[in-house]
Amino acid sequence: MIRLHVPDPLAAGAVVVPSADQARYLVGVMRQGLGDSVLLFNGRDGEWRAQLVEVSKKGCRLAAVERVREQTSPPDLDLIVALVKRGPLETIVEKAVELGARRIRLALTRRTNADHTNVARLQAIATEAAEQTGRLETPQVVAPEKLDRILDAWPDGRRLMFCDEAGDDPAAEWGGRAGRARSALAALAEAGGGPWAVLIGPEGGFAPEERARLREAAFVAPVTLGPRILRADTAAIAALALWQAARGDWTEN
Amino acid sequence: MIRLHVPDPLAAGAVVVPSADQARYLVGVMRQGLGDSVLLFNGRDGEWRAQLVEVSKKGCRLAAVERVREQTSPPDLDLIVALVKRGPLETIVEKAVELGARRIRLALTRRTNADHTNVARLQAIATEAAEQTGRLETPQVVAPEKLDRILDAWPDGRRLMFCDEAGDDPAAEWGGRAGRARSALAALAEAGGGPWAVLIGPEGGFAPEERARLREAAFVAPVTLGPRILRADTAAIAALALWQAARGDWTEN
Repeated sequence: MIRLHVPDPLAAGAVVVPSADQARYLVGVMRQGLGDSVLLFNGRDGEWRAQLVEVSKKGCRLAAVERVREQTSPPDLDLIVALVKRGPLETIVEKAVELGARRIRLALTRRTNADHTNVARLQAIATEAAEQTGRLETPQVVAPEKLDRILDAWPDGRRLMFCDEAGDDPAAEWGGRAGRARSALAALAEAGGGPWAVLIGPEGGFAPEERARLREAAFVAPVTLGPRILRADTAAIAALALWQAARGDWTEN
Repeated sequence: MIRLHVPDPLAAGAVVVPSADQARYLVGVMRQGLGDSVLLFNGRDGEWRAQLVEVSKKGCRLAAVERVREQTSPPDLDLIVALVKRGPLETIVEKAVELGARRIRLALTRRTNADHTNVARLQAIATEAAEQTGRLETPQVVAPEKLDRILDAWPDGRRLMFCDEAGDDPAAEWGGRAGRARSALAALAEAGGGPWAVLIGPEGGFAPEERARLREAAFVAPVTLGPRILRADTAAIAALALWQAARGDWTEN
């Protein structure tokens, strides 16, 4: 069944006017007509079955009929990703939504080439991915911030899985076990509970001073993702999947 | 440093004539000249540093200088993927190479729309991905086969991680624990060692008779990949990453 994200409150009998794009999709592309059912969610009121109660050239109206799922939230996992090229960045946003990230933050690092991106377009990709993957809320895509600022304002209690493609640098001295990169599953298995974030770097990797800061921070778990060189989109998908499998909602109940 | 896959034997002093495409890339795009070094691998003789010893309008020649890495093989993991649309299929091939699959088999299932694909193009994508990810061999892309045939000829000792997007079907009776879908990490942790394969289905999912056959086979570990609906490319990347992390070469040494 077609799923749409809407901003409106949802309750029995609530009437919702979908956006022009949504109406075109529903009626023009998917050929839905009067009385047909779609699913609606707004991130607050669960998932509702709604019926088309009016169809005209100007648009359509839906009436919420019954709640079919209670509101839930995925585990508290942010993705922080450096501004990579547009194609891989759009892939990463789409896949992060499928993989249950609650928020997608864009980071400017010393080796990030771009300093801006079309956040509205990325948010639209996130919303469409949320509709298709069956989520009950749409992750927020946060406008680019400097990595140093993100780290300066790091909240108490959130851990950071730092995917360090460069792996362990024998020339650097990481001051013992705390700064040593581990396999992702081993690092995740040992850490405590609570909120997390995953950090994926730019194509050129992190600068030495960024790596040193990350390796030394107490909230950071530096991890390696195997012996092969991964593109940013591959690394992001792999890291989010490993987190969900080890600590998130892919674990066995 | 630039890496190229070549079919030629590699030994000290061996002269290699790269393909026309490779020569164009080396000299025309990357502006390499006489005496510059590149890395060569052929899947048998390890990785060799080679130098450009001749550059002309017609092409170029390389001479192998020294072996810089011994030949190794990734763990014995096949990816079996249904023929999905061209875009996601090409993504899956590229990412499967990065994630260390040794062989990529294409499967025709009851709900697969296409019955053929450009295998040579997929093999070229696999070769380029092997060059970029630092592998010492290029995974073979095997021409499409019927899933039933693949299962009929299943080799002794190889296990199959069946990613069943439909999850557990309460209406079906899977005959107890053996056919029950589990979280991927739990299923991988309990199984024995040896060779494996990962199976990713088509966009329309598996037909009931395919699912029943897979659930009942002794060599199959049916797994779920969380509560959200994943596209085929997301599921393939996630499953390969989980396998490498749990049983492959991403584990802690």
